[in-house]
Amino acid sequence: MNIIRVSIIGFGAVGQGVAEVILKKMDYLRDLNLEIKVVAVVDSRGAEIDTEGIDLAKALERKRSKGTVALVDKTGLDVIKNIEHDVVIETTPTNIDDGGAGLRNMLEAFRQGRDVVTSNKGPLALKYTELVEAANSSGSKFRFEATVGGAMPIINLIKGVLAGNEILSIQGILNGTCNYILTRMLEEEASYEQMLAEAQERGIAETDPTYDVEGIDAACKLVILANSVFGMNATYKDVDVTGISKITPESMILAYNDGYVTKLIGEVRKDLLCVAPRLVPIGHPLSVGDTLNVASVQTDLAGPVTITGRGAGSIETASAILSDLISISRNMNE
Amino acid sequence: MNIIRVSIIGFGAVGQGVAEVILKKMDYLRDLNLEIKVVAVVDSRGAEIDTEGIDLAKALERKRSKGTVALVDKTGLDVIKNIEHDVVIETTPTNIDDGGAGLRNMLEAFRQGRDVVTSNKGPLALKYTELVEAANSSGSKFRFEATVGGAMPIINLIKGVLAGNEILSIQGILNGTCNYILTRMLEEEASYEQMLAEAQERGIAETDPTYDVEGIDAACKLVILANSVFGMNATYKDVDVTGISKITPESMILAYNDGYVTKLIGEVRKDLLCVAPRLVPIGHPLSVGDTLNVASVQTDLAGPVTITGRGAGSIETASAILSDLISISRNMNE
Repeated sequence: MNIIRVSIIGFGAVGQGVAEVILKKMDYLRDLNLEIKVVAVVDSRGAEIDTEGIDLAKALERKRSKGTVALVDKTGLDVIKNIEHDVVIETTPTNIDDGGAGLRNMLEAFRQGRDVVTSNKGPLALKYTELVEAANSSGSKFRFEATVGGAMPIINLIKGVLAGNEILSIQGILNGTCNYILTRMLEEEASYEQMLAEAQERGIAETDPTYDVEGIDAACKLVILANSVFGMNATYKDVDVTGISKITPESMILAYNDGYVTKLIGEVRKDLLCVAPRLVPIGHPLSVGDTLNVASVQTDLAGPVTITGRGAGSIETASAILSDLISISRNMNE
Repeated sequence: MNIIRVSIIGFGAVGQGVAEVILKKMDYLRDLNLEIKVVAVVDSRGAEIDTEGIDLAKALERKRSKGTVALVDKTGLDVIKNIEHDVVIETTPTNIDDGGAGLRNMLEAFRQGRDVVTSNKGPLALKYTELVEAANSSGSKFRFEATVGGAMPIINLIKGVLAGNEILSIQGILNGTCNYILTRMLEEEASYEQMLAEAQERGIAETDPTYDVEGIDAACKLVILANSVFGMNATYKDVDVTGISKITPESMILAYNDGYVTKLIGEVRKDLLCVAPRLVPIGHPLSVGDTLNVASVQTDLAGPVTITGRGAGSIETASAILSDLISISRNMNE
């Protein structure tokens, strides 16, 4: 049995999703000859640590009933520094001002020679090159499928399945909240403000929706693609961004009658990093609605290949983290 | 340098595409520490054999000017039996009556302990279990991404990227010719017969279109997914098939005005193997037009994940074969 010892740093929706998925997939993983042993779970109020493996069902139950998993007064950095384990699963809240705790946790993990799997966009949208250099200098693995589009596995598609292809460009809908609002504006012939309010009521948009509707979230994801696929050294501030708040239903209906839907599209190719509303022909692979994320990769051999999936959701995001963990374990076997 | 010696058995459009792609990607492959050395190329009139590696540019030129690559009077089976090499690339014309030369070539390759990469649907749609058992009993690898949807990498997506997920069902548009005809019927408000004729003029449909328009090609691809992903032991004759020839533009326009497009959808899940026309909501990931192929995979964790790509084209299909070759070479390194 191949045993990977992991910590879960950040125990909000995604961190709890990871714990649920590891619990749910225990038998499946055993069939892959793999045991994922969680030796520490940390939230903002403290930690549970057990080098023999934490009982995840009890940890989840305690989090739900008491609001924290904490049994001891330890931080993420304490765990990363002092508890022997292989992979740090970094799922703290994202911070796009300076990378915050997530950036410090990842850098410390690499310093300790641990691998990192993360869903935390901020540090990668700000300090991608620094993180990759830190990972390389300690021989650590760094996987971040969950940072771009949740359960839309664009990075692993490009790195694995499309091997042999040169990637010429990527275009995509990288924010599910914007896609929802635009889809509903057309369906209901309703204003941006009305459909934003609906999205907020349904929990699809935040109370302060700026990060989503002004295209910042999409820009963060685009920059992670730009850096990891195209080898750029960009931050999200390098992206030319226009949001969706100026779009009117009248313009969308006119476009629809001509065979187009209006979508917030991020695009990266040589010398271009841009997020802006664009018209997409109905029937084009990028013309998907609802809260879906989608990315279309232009390749030199395979032509355009498009992947669509749910951009959010704790279990969906946790599934991307699990795929990254399994991929790390396969490399460990080599 | 990791050297893979391969034969190309069948030198029609796809076989020539493979040669072109290997030529084009020589530097790229060298950067991966990989050399693909083609030791034999075979068409219906004979073979070129060179254990030091064939000059592919010359072989392609000879094929184009003389109609054959043949320099010696040898068959695919002769090459597979007697020329030392690692991987047989099987790209002979498909045969869905008894598997034909393709089936014999693959079984002989496994008997000789060689790996097989193929784009040849027929043998897999008829004798999947027999082929997999033959591969397993000789420890050979068997890769066939190109058999299902050309450059739409559904199999490697499921086996690699979606690791950790249970696959609950797959639905897809698995035939580009049908998608083209249906897309054009709606655009032009024209009859099936008219748009079939247009597709034939453009080289998208065959003179005898039965195999495509009656859903047989889609059924073959569906069965390969059923067997390889769901572990079924089915042949394409087990698929409940309805084609597109009875669809009228009037019914398509009515559906469109209600927000639906009409598509030929293949579906596989436990106890179901079916190809039939269905209504798909506009904006759904399966609602793509033109000649595109698309497959939507329902998973337990990631939810629905959809992949879209070109279903045909010699370079596109060759790119799937190249990806399979690279994946075999990565395993050789382990």
